[in-house]
Amino acid sequence: MYQLYIANKNYSSWSLRPWLLLQQLNIPFAEKLQQFQVDNYDNFRRFSPTAKVPCLHDGNTVVWESLAIVEYLAERHAGVWPADAAARNYARCAASEMHAGFSTLRNVCTMNCGVRAQLVNPPPALAQELSRLDELWQQGLNQFGGPFLAGPDFTAVDAFFAPVAFRVQSFDLKLSANAMAYVKQLLALPAMQAWYQAALLESWREPSHEAEIGLFGTITKDYRQN
Amino acid sequence: MYQLYIANKNYSSWSLRPWLLLQQLNIPFAEKLQQFQVDNYDNFRRFSPTAKVPCLHDGNTVVWESLAIVEYLAERHAGVWPADAAARNYARCAASEMHAGFSTLRNVCTMNCGVRAQLVNPPPALAQELSRLDELWQQGLNQFGGPFLAGPDFTAVDAFFAPVAFRVQSFDLKLSANAMAYVKQLLALPAMQAWYQAALLESWREPSHEAEIGLFGTITKDYRQN
Ligand SMILES: N[C@@H](CCC(=O)N[C@@H](CS)C(=O)NCC(=O)O)C(=O)O
Ligand SMILES: N[C@@H](CCC(=O)N[C@@H](CS)C(=O)NCC(=O)O)C(=O)O
Repeated sequence: MYQLYIANKNYSSWSLRPWLLLQQLNIPFAEKLQQFQVDNYDNFRRFSPTAKVPCLHDGNTVVWESLAIVEYLAERHAGVWPADAAARNYARCAASEMHAGFSTLRNVCTMNCGVRAQLVNPPPALAQELSRLDELWQQGLNQFGGPFLAGPDFTAVDAFFAPVAFRVQSFDLKLSANAMAYVKQLLALPAMQAWYQAALLESWREPSHEAEIGLFGTITKDYRQN
Repeated sequence: MYQLYIANKNYSSWSLRPWLLLQQLNIPFAEKLQQFQVDNYDNFRRFSPTAKVPCLHDGNTVVWESLAIVEYLAERHAGVWPADAAARNYARCAASEMHAGFSTLRNVCTMNCGVRAQLVNPPPALAQELSRLDELWQQGLNQFGGPFLAGPDFTAVDAFFAPVAFRVQSFDLKLSANAMAYVKQLLALPAMQAWYQAALLESWREPSHEAEIGLFGTITKDYRQN
């Protein structure tokens, strides 16, 4: 059975991506959750060469990097990418664009599922990235007919943008009506709800992740236990 | 025939990756070189939704993002990734790690093929990234027997690290003997030499790329024409 190493559900956006994909495709796996520490290098190096999560173990095979995990699964299971070639090309381009891009969105609107925050003086690059995100989503939703980004089924490209749904919820980000409907749909997925509820129950806080939100935001609500 | 949009060979590390892969696999393509400008957004948006290079056009299909270009080619041509499953997994993990990582190496040792420079007070993260790079390369070279990262043949993972070879040359970076032999081998590929010679002949300079080298280095030699 696959073993998927992840970190705190409240914080770890990269962990969410393959976790959600496996859940949505009903692929069995053992979840190996490791808590973020002030210094987690030595602990994370035990299972991942980059000391980062996510990391998938399949017997002796170690698959680090979220995008490589997706391609590894795509070689072994149907439905990871869309069957239609044009939709698959869009999905791979969009997932790659997220993998290396949207750095302002990722830094300024840090994932912290359980809180709600108000942004204070976000850098101008944030609005540019949100505009590109909206355009990219609309391209997929329009071209492949929705309700998911690359057509009727949830695929890896939706998994790659799932953390953005939590960010929109936490920071009350404004997108077009189509894009907001898509966010709502992602948030309503039972697996997203399960991740969210588990995040709220985590009692561990990690100082540097908690500090990130203060750089460009003020917490207005905190739904986490303790 | 494929059309590959790239930018200045002297500067554009992302462009080099798919260009070199296509050359090494003898896949015919038309090179569409666009010069970097102080503001190239409008020009680059004509052919790429992110206004970035590389961007591959295949008839009406637009493939932006270097990693998505690689997967697009892998569906259509043999040899893009290694045939062996373990080597292919390594290759995809390593290419993804480069796609989203090694940001200090990429920023501090900016690609500028034609110059040689001495680093001045590079940030400590550079040494950490070089140490990880060396470890990653050695893993591939040892596990799959070389002389390329994932075995006997040049594959997409080598294309993904090809810009590092120019960076090692430009900034006189020190790596292990195995890693240095691999760099030498990449630099000696006829297609790498052709890219390099074309870079030297480019007479156009782009101010922001030229300024990057001054942030952490001093130019000691400039082999470019004019
Ligand atoms: N490019 C990596 C990114 C992984 C990543 O940055 N993971 C974060 C957590 S979301 C991490 O493990 N950080 C640990 C650390 O920096 O100490 C991927 O796609 O998997
Ligand atoms: N994640 C992209 C990166 C592409 C990229 O950053 N390209 C640079 C040139 S090497 C670019 O086009 N920059 C244009 C600009 O920033 O104006 C990929 O993998 O293709």
